[in-house]
Amino acid sequence: MISEKMKPFLQNNSAIRAMFEEGKRMAAEYGADKVYDFSLGNPNVPAPAKIRDAIVSILDEEDPVFVHGYMSNAGFPHVRKAIADNLNARFGTHFTENNLIMTVGAGSGLNVCLKTLVNPGDEVIVFAPYFLEYGAYIGNYDGVLVQVDPDTETFQLNLADFERKLSPKTKAVIINNPHNPTGVVFSEETIKALAAILSKKQQEYGHAIYLLSDEPYRELAFDGAQVPFVTKYYDNTMVVYSYSKSLSLPGERIGYVVIPDEVEESEDTIAAATIANRISGCVNAPSLIQLAVAKCVDAEVDLDYYDRNRKALYDGLTSFGFTCVRPEGAFYLWLKSPVPDEKAFVEAAKKYHILMVPGSSFACPGYVRLAYCVSYETIRNALPEFGKLAEEFFRA
Amino acid sequence: MISEKMKPFLQNNSAIRAMFEEGKRMAAEYGADKVYDFSLGNPNVPAPAKIRDAIVSILDEEDPVFVHGYMSNAGFPHVRKAIADNLNARFGTHFTENNLIMTVGAGSGLNVCLKTLVNPGDEVIVFAPYFLEYGAYIGNYDGVLVQVDPDTETFQLNLADFERKLSPKTKAVIINNPHNPTGVVFSEETIKALAAILSKKQQEYGHAIYLLSDEPYRELAFDGAQVPFVTKYYDNTMVVYSYSKSLSLPGERIGYVVIPDEVEESEDTIAAATIANRISGCVNAPSLIQLAVAKCVDAEVDLDYYDRNRKALYDGLTSFGFTCVRPEGAFYLWLKSPVPDEKAFVEAAKKYHILMVPGSSFACPGYVRLAYCVSYETIRNALPEFGKLAEEFFRA
Repeated sequence: MISEKMKPFLQNNSAIRAMFEEGKRMAAEYGADKVYDFSLGNPNVPAPAKIRDAIVSILDEEDPVFVHGYMSNAGFPHVRKAIADNLNARFGTHFTENNLIMTVGAGSGLNVCLKTLVNPGDEVIVFAPYFLEYGAYIGNYDGVLVQVDPDTETFQLNLADFERKLSPKTKAVIINNPHNPTGVVFSEETIKALAAILSKKQQEYGHAIYLLSDEPYRELAFDGAQVPFVTKYYDNTMVVYSYSKSLSLPGERIGYVVIPDEVEESEDTIAAATIANRISGCVNAPSLIQLAVAKCVDAEVDLDYYDRNRKALYDGLTSFGFTCVRPEGAFYLWLKSPVPDEKAFVEAAKKYHILMVPGSSFACPGYVRLAYCVSYETIRNALPEFGKLAEEFFRA
Repeated sequence: MISEKMKPFLQNNSAIRAMFEEGKRMAAEYGADKVYDFSLGNPNVPAPAKIRDAIVSILDEEDPVFVHGYMSNAGFPHVRKAIADNLNARFGTHFTENNLIMTVGAGSGLNVCLKTLVNPGDEVIVFAPYFLEYGAYIGNYDGVLVQVDPDTETFQLNLADFERKLSPKTKAVIINNPHNPTGVVFSEETIKALAAILSKKQQEYGHAIYLLSDEPYRELAFDGAQVPFVTKYYDNTMVVYSYSKSLSLPGERIGYVVIPDEVEESEDTIAAATIANRISGCVNAPSLIQLAVAKCVDAEVDLDYYDRNRKALYDGLTSFGFTCVRPEGAFYLWLKSPVPDEKAFVEAAKKYHILMVPGSSFACPGYVRLAYCVSYETIRNALPEFGKLAEEFFRA
C-alpha cells in the first residue's frame, strides 16, 4: 500500500544499498585499511575546533529556552544577518537578513525553492552529469526533469544543447558549482553566457525562468579558480548553500537559501519560500547549529588537505594513462572509463579493493566518480592498485 | 510566478503574521510583563541540564567526523536502538532499531508517513479541532483532507461521525494524543473503539487504513491520565514523536517515526519511509542532537511546572464562570467562548492584554485555545484581567 510515486524508489534503493553493503563486506573481509573507498562524498576532515567551541559557549552563555526554541521559520534574524554580511563582504552583494532562509541543508533548500516555484508539468533543466537526487526533488512537485547533454570535452555547461532544451514550459534551471561529480568549476565566461541565454529566453517567453545555484562546494576551489557568485550575473537567481562540506557538518543538516531583492516579486517569493520551509515539515533549520555557524562565518575549510589528495590522485592516475578532466573544485575526480561500459570498469576495480561510483549514477555513462575526501594514506596505498587496474585495461 | 499550490498560503500567512506582530507591538507598548500571551505552544521550561551535558560530553569524547557526519538516512542505529529499548520497557512493545526512523521533528515525521502512503486523491481523515498544518501536509501529496466533526460534550473522538466519514478512498487517519488544542487525553476505551471501527472497515474495503498517531505531548499527562500506546490496539499504526515538548527542544527539530513489524508489508514500508525522509531533502535528522537525545531517553519533563499552571488557570477561569473541558494533557486549555463568534471574544481580550488563539484556527469555531506553557507569574497576573473579561461578557 506504498504510494505509487514511492514504488520506483524502492527498486533503485536496493542497488545503492547493495553497493554500500559490498563496501562493508569488503572492509570486513580484507580490513578497512585494505579497501580504497572513493565512493562517498562524506568529508573526513573534522569540523573546525571553532564549531565545538561555539556550541559549548552558546550552551554555557545563552538561555536554553532561546537556544533550543522556535524562532522565525526563516531562522534566527541575527544568524541570517551574520551570513548576509559575510556574503556582502566577500562578493560585493547587498543582502539583508530578509534575503536569507536557513534550511535543513542544501537538499531541503532545493526542495524549498522547487516547492515555491514549480507547478505540475513545469520543466526544470539540469545539466548531465548531475546528482540524480535532483530528479526526486523535481518529482516531489510533479515537475518534469529535462536533461542537457554533457560537454565531454571540457565538462563546462553545454550551452548549445541548453538553448535547444529551453522551452516555454521551463520554470527553473539547476546548476551546481563547483561541480559534483566532475570537480569542474564553471567559469565566469560560462555563467555570463548562461545568463545571456536565460535573459533572452525570459523575454521571448514573457515569464521568469529561475536559476537555482546549488553551491555546497563553494569554498572548495583550487589553483586560484574563482567561483562566480551567480546573483551578480542574473537577477532571477536563488543560491542554495550548505555547511556540509565547508565546515564538515553533513549530518547536521544546516544550510540556507538566498533570494535576492532582484528576483521577480521577491517579497512574495521569500514569504512563500519561508512557508514552504515550514509546511514541508522542517518548520525551521535546527536551532543550536544555526547559532553555531553564525559564530563561524569566517571559519575556513582546510583546503590544503584536499589539495594534496587532489594532486596525488590526479598525477598518479594520469601517469598510469587514465584520462580525466582537471579537477579545480569540490573533492571529486571524474575519470574517463577505459571501456565504454563503465560499470564493467567499476566491477573490475573491486578486484583491487577500489570502490568508485559509475557515471550512470550521474546520468553520464562512460565515466566514473572518485571522491578524494579520504585520508592521504588511502590515496597513497590505492595508487599501486590503480596501476594494476590500468595495466589490466590498457594492456588488453 | 509562485506555484499555484503556494499562493493560498501567502494569504493565510498574512493573518498569522498580523497576530504575531500585534503581540510584539503590545509588548513594546505596554511592557512584556503586562502582556499575557497564551497564543504560542513554545515551552518555556528549559531543556533538562542533561541535554547540555550530553552535548558537551559527545563533543569532547567522540570524533567530530562521526558526530557531525552522515549516517544511515534512518538515523544512527544505536540511537534508534536506545529509543526502541526505552519504548519497549515502558509500553511492553517489541521494537528494534529497524522499526524507528529519526526525523526532523514530528512535522517531518508526519510528512514522511504521508509521502510513503498517500496517492493523489486518497482521503486522510482528521478530527476537529486539529492543528491546521495537517491540511498543508496532506496537500503536499495531493491527498484530500476529510474532517470529522467535534464531540463538543467531551472532545473525545467523535466516532459516530468518523464512521460516516470513512470511505473506500480512506488511506490514513491522523490522531493527536494528548491533544492540541483541547488538552484532552483520548482514553483506552476511545482508542479501542477507534481500532475496532478501523479493523472492520479495512476488511470491508479490502485494503489497509493507516492510523498515524501524532504524539509530541505523550509525556505531558496529568491526574494520572494514561495515554494508550496505539500500536498495541491496531496493527497498521505509525507513531510520530517529537522531543519538542518533552525535552523542550522545539527548535532542534528532532523526533522519530515508529513503524511496527505488524504494519502491512512493514519491511517495504519502512524502506520507503526512510527514502521519503531522504528525498524530501531532509536526508536525515540532525546528527549531534540525535546523539544527545539517545543519552537522555529517560530524562523527564518537569510536569509539576505545567501542572501548577494548569490548575491555577483552570480553577481561575472556571471560578469566573468560563466553561472548559478539563485539561488532562499537553499544555493547552480549551475554553468555550461566551459568544458564538469567538474571534470577537479574542479581540475583546486584547483590551486586557490577553492573547489567545481562536478555535477557527483549529477548524472549531466557538472556542479559544490558551497555551499555559508560560511562567506562573503570567498566569497569576493574567487572572484578574480574565476576571474583567468575564465581567464584560457575562454581565452583558
